[in-house]
Amino acid sequence: MLPYHYEHRVRVRYAETDKMGVCWHGNYLLYLEEARGEALRATGHGSYAEMEAAGVMTPIVNIQLNYHQSSFYDDELVIHVYVEEPVRSRICFRYEVKNLAGDLILDGTTTLAFITADTHQPCRPPLALRQFFK
Amino acid sequence: MLPYHYEHRVRVRYAETDKMGVCWHGNYLLYLEEARGEALRATGHGSYAEMEAAGVMTPIVNIQLNYHQSSFYDDELVIHVYVEEPVRSRICFRYEVKNLAGDLILDGTTTLAFITADTHQPCRPPLALRQFFK
Amino acid sequence: MLPYHYEHRVRVRYAETDKMGVCWHGNYLLYLEEARGEALRATGHGSYAEMEAAGVMTPIVNIQLNYHQSSFYDDELVIHVYVEEPVRSRICFRYEVKNLAGDLILDGTTTLAFITADTHQPCRPPLALRQFFK
Amino acid sequence: MLPYHYEHRVRVRYAETDKMGVCWHGNYLLYLEEARGEALRATGHGSYAEMEAAGVMTPIVNIQLNYHQSSFYDDELVIHVYVEEPVRSRICFRYEVKNLAGDLILDGTTTLAFITADTHQPCRPPLALRQFFK
Repeated sequence: MLPYHYEHRVRVRYAETDKMGVCWHGNYLLYLEEARGEALRATGHGSYAEMEAAGVMTPIVNIQLNYHQSSFYDDELVIHVYVEEPVRSRICFRYEVKNLAGDLILDGTTTLAFITADTHQPCRPPLALRQFFK
Repeated sequence: MLPYHYEHRVRVRYAETDKMGVCWHGNYLLYLEEARGEALRATGHGSYAEMEAAGVMTPIVNIQLNYHQSSFYDDELVIHVYVEEPVRSRICFRYEVKNLAGDLILDGTTTLAFITADTHQPCRPPLALRQFFK
Repeated sequence: MLPYHYEHRVRVRYAETDKMGVCWHGNYLLYLEEARGEALRATGHGSYAEMEAAGVMTPIVNIQLNYHQSSFYDDELVIHVYVEEPVRSRICFRYEVKNLAGDLILDGTTTLAFITADTHQPCRPPLALRQFFK
Repeated sequence: MLPYHYEHRVRVRYAETDKMGVCWHGNYLLYLEEARGEALRATGHGSYAEMEAAGVMTPIVNIQLNYHQSSFYDDELVIHVYVEEPVRSRICFRYEVKNLAGDLILDGTTTLAFITADTHQPCRPPLALRQFFK
């Protein structure tokens, strides 16, 4: 069951490339965020949008990324997301991004905090999410 | 006095280029928005942030842009902003973007609506702004 | 046959929203560009990436957009792309962007020029594309 | 002399905020990249654009960032860049991003590799840059 694994695909947009001819390094954070959202939706325990509507937000607190190879315009990328059980008010996502040839493009982690939308204080993850990881 | 003219400078970021080696067309909207904000601040009648804090937002309703030449990484661009007096709940900004050699890169207009932050209904421009244009 | 119609779907990313809580106006250009690319791929006459690899690039020369309603994080948007037959070295794409409730979010056009990748001079559209529109 | 310290200022753009009302986490990479470029220009040993024109590119290989507090639209941010002497074909930049009240917004490092523009093989840093750090 743990870590929960989800696989998401994105395609590199033209605007996401830079003059080096490759996907600009910061744009992978767009893909990882999208992949997290789809991983959450796929649990069947509510989307990220629903979680925010219920008063919980999840700002990023730490990012660690290793860039192994470049990706290019129109490349389809496979994002493997591994989600660990939340620890108190934090949750860690681990990623491997590969191209269709299987080359490792990027790996790393992002750690997010659960905070309340009104007071911005740390809070426990939503119940449905906690139960999913039990 | 009218149209009010303001000149703003930006530098093209690496991330704002694309694989064609030029500034990606959509990124000029970042520059125009920044130039509008600085033009508003320079009137001495409050920044855009203060206007929003006072309950007025200005979504874009129309964009018309002509692209004449490319700009490149690290180019310094001069953005000439011309602001017409608001008409009812709308205001039109006209722009000319040039590089330091004086070449015209882009010209065009953006039209914005004044709406209330709470009900999102059209509203009059803030009083200070109306008086500025008298 | 003409105009050629293609329908593409995108989902609004979290990073593409702004503090007004809606999709930032400039980000629609990301969606339109992606939709153009998929429309071209769907013709069966080569992708945009293949066209560039063959030495033809298509910078934007004109954009005209009308914003009717906002879209929001996680909204799925349907982009209707209508492509007219290229006239000399230019091609015009017309768009209607709707949400799943059928509300019109945005409509407008983008005009692109065909230029050679080496000399950046205007050129005719690739043969396959011209034949597709015959 | 070492580490070389440079201070750069940026202002958070409206488009760089997200629906949480704060600067989207990935956009700090725009600011760090801009700060690196200005730090390099300030050495008097050539800009990043000149280095690329001379055949050397510097892709990112590692990013480590800690997010401490949010920043907001129109905030002016002070980016402290600390550059260590390059080790073989790599160079590490350390950052502290603060708002004007002195609050620490973000700190972290990015590591870049020097590669040749033609073969994309690792290479030594440009001579001028190596001499600067002697």
